Amino acid sequence: MHIEVICTGDEVLTGKIVNTNFSYISQKLEDFGLSVSWETTVGDDRESLLLAFQLAGQRADAVIVNGGLGPTVDDLSQEIAAQAAGVDLVLSEEWLAKMEAYFQRRGRVMPPNNRKQAMLPAGAEVIDNPVGTACGFALNIGRARFFFTPGVPRELRRMLEEQIVPRLLAKSGMQTAVYLKRFHSYGIGESHADTLLAGVAELAPDGSVKLGFRAHYPQLETKLTARGSDMEDIRRKLAPVEQEVRKRLGNFILAEDDRTLEGVVLAELASRQATLSLVETFTSGQIAARIAHLPGAEKVVRRGILARELAEVCAAVGLDRVAATGGITRETAEAVARAVQRHTGSTHALAVLIDLDEGADRIEFAGTVCLAIATGHDVASRRSRIVGGREWVRLGAVEMGLDCLRRYLQGLPVYERIDFEKVE
Amino acid sequence: MHIEVICTGDEVLTGKIVNTNFSYISQKLEDFGLSVSWETTVGDDRESLLLAFQLAGQRADAVIVNGGLGPTVDDLSQEIAAQAAGVDLVLSEEWLAKMEAYFQRRGRVMPPNNRKQAMLPAGAEVIDNPVGTACGFALNIGRARFFFTPGVPRELRRMLEEQIVPRLLAKSGMQTAVYLKRFHSYGIGESHADTLLAGVAELAPDGSVKLGFRAHYPQLETKLTARGSDMEDIRRKLAPVEQEVRKRLGNFILAEDDRTLEGVVLAELASRQATLSLVETFTSGQIAARIAHLPGAEKVVRRGILARELAEVCAAVGLDRVAATGGITRETAEAVARAVQRHTGSTHALAVLIDLDEGADRIEFAGTVCLAIATGHDVASRRSRIVGGREWVRLGAVEMGLDCLRRYLQGLPVYERIDFEKVE
Repeated sequence: MHIEVICTGDEVLTGKIVNTNFSYISQKLEDFGLSVSWETTVGDDRESLLLAFQLAGQRADAVIVNGGLGPTVDDLSQEIAAQAAGVDLVLSEEWLAKMEAYFQRRGRVMPPNNRKQAMLPAGAEVIDNPVGTACGFALNIGRARFFFTPGVPRELRRMLEEQIVPRLLAKSGMQTAVYLKRFHSYGIGESHADTLLAGVAELAPDGSVKLGFRAHYPQLETKLTARGSDMEDIRRKLAPVEQEVRKRLGNFILAEDDRTLEGVVLAELASRQATLSLVETFTSGQIAARIAHLPGAEKVVRRGILARELAEVCAAVGLDRVAATGGITRETAEAVARAVQRHTGSTHALAVLIDLDEGADRIEFAGTVCLAIATGHDVASRRSRIVGGREWVRLGAVEMGLDCLRRYLQGLPVYERIDFEKVE
Repeated sequence: MHIEVICTGDEVLTGKIVNTNFSYISQKLEDFGLSVSWETTVGDDRESLLLAFQLAGQRADAVIVNGGLGPTVDDLSQEIAAQAAGVDLVLSEEWLAKMEAYFQRRGRVMPPNNRKQAMLPAGAEVIDNPVGTACGFALNIGRARFFFTPGVPRELRRMLEEQIVPRLLAKSGMQTAVYLKRFHSYGIGESHADTLLAGVAELAPDGSVKLGFRAHYPQLETKLTARGSDMEDIRRKLAPVEQEVRKRLGNFILAEDDRTLEGVVLAELASRQATLSLVETFTSGQIAARIAHLPGAEKVVRRGILARELAEVCAAVGLDRVAATGGITRETAEAVARAVQRHTGSTHALAVLIDLDEGADRIEFAGTVCLAIATGHDVASRRSRIVGGREWVRLGAVEMGLDCLRRYLQGLPVYERIDFEKVE
């Protein structure tokens, strides 16, 4: 099945925003065994939109259009869709009622220009948007079925996963079931993982399992796309490959499928009725921000403290200033973790301290991370040099802090050499 | 001048890598007053590449092709360019010599498959690549001049800025300059802003200023694209529009152009040698994470404290538990802000406390935000109900906290009704 994507909007065309909606759509389809063959980006321009719709309608079986469903004058998708299909725009009473209810629930009156969002090409199939006022819809243009989706990422995601992918799978007539198995890891780069996992896909018969990766620093996602006649068949084919991936990536696997690192850490703590306190310096609240808002975290995350200066850290945890000449050490981190654990009465404490190098931000810019995990009777720590600029040091330290805590809670070694650190 | 961009490669088409090369190219052209009208992404596939080249060659005056110039078998750009132009591939002795010298300087022998990179369509103009082995080139296909560039970002950048932009400017014979003016606001939705700003663009002559928006909750960006014969002309045309936008959006404008809300807050604090402490509950470190890592924040952000339970907040700031029956109030937030200001000795303190509604996450899920800003001698506060699910409540509260602090520091009213709150 030939699938195309058309992204619309001056923001995307002028490069003001990077087109992450497209990479999301394409990846999501790949996960279900579908492939995008062609992508077009055009601006909020009648002539270009019409031509793009017509060309895709000649080439493709299915087209996903993203953006242009908003209430303002530069949102043109419905209008041009109607023109390309040779039909009129008509008011969808159904969608108008939905929008009015949406505003009412928020105690607001619907502004008059939102009415435009309920004008759909005659004969279009409404595709529900449970989280916004932009109405998704499907209709035929040329030989293709077009699916119109909103530009707001969370609205696009809900609509694509819950409603468009099933329609595409039905249209493709694929009889085989597809299942995506995912492993999330921290500390192994993509080419290293590729080497480590050489040959694993061959443990399944007939190329029924495909190995792939998606690197999004600092995590790497290892994906197994499995095909079979049904889920039972898929499970049988996937089992030996899955097992081998777990064996080869070992302690580096931090979560599988929809689970997250922070979710795993929270579950480990909650299962033992433990509580957590955090101390952060240059990560400046990012570790706390990953875990403390999750449902259930209110019972686990007791307190987070952040300060940029070590003296301020010490003051906050009731510690006499540690003699720290020549930068932060593992011992400093251990002292701070122990102090905050005592100070707050939590069962566990994590301290992530960072010494940034001097000078302007650049690709060789590095930072020294010293982190420690303390309980009432134990302490573990590690030190690492992370290189790649201020932002990468910060992102890497957040991940390392959470991952070391996961390792500690799972009884794994807190220290294992990772691909992103600089060996001295 | 009609300019198109064609991005090639399976990695981009499958969404494995996000297409930042395209946004870079488009932004760079905008900087020089040139605009991309159409973008196409195709994979490493002969048929698609040929069709993409032919279509763009019919529509455009100039086309920039990115990727496919490497030494491996799936790099097809030269081959398909020759086919589309109806010419043969010929060896460029000039480029072969350059490549051999390139390898020699690195003390290596050129691998035989790199020879492929010196095979160019007959009659192509060589465009130098001073930082790699992929040879850029230009040739005519259809009515357009095509410019072929490497996929490696730093090679693309050098080639685009130093060699392709000057060729495009010469070809366009452009006399007009373009300038983009941006306003960032919080609290006004896109359709509301569209209504508020109706007619402003008409304050400039001859449609020389165009109004547009970019919504990325919780912020809205209002954009004015202005054209003129030179920057002086643009400034003259833009001035009345710019002034009117400032007047109509008023206190809601939190920053202009490249400045950010957190940057403005930090600058306001730094300019008066002030220091800041933060207390957060459900925002769980996100407010701190926005501001505390910025260069210069180490002198301003003294301490951040987060806890999910009010009792824990009070313990952390040395406050007897505030009598808080029936949820958090403005008074609670004021007491907490005053206490943390005293406790840490900072000149300013911001406390953002949230009571979440009961029940599962859903689109109608709301939270009550009570925030306060305290100095040694003053306190200001506001209360708001934010609706839209756990994540939106959290994002909204982060923005509201920072924006109220901005308003306080700029002497503006901390309370003004916003579009995202639920009126009770």
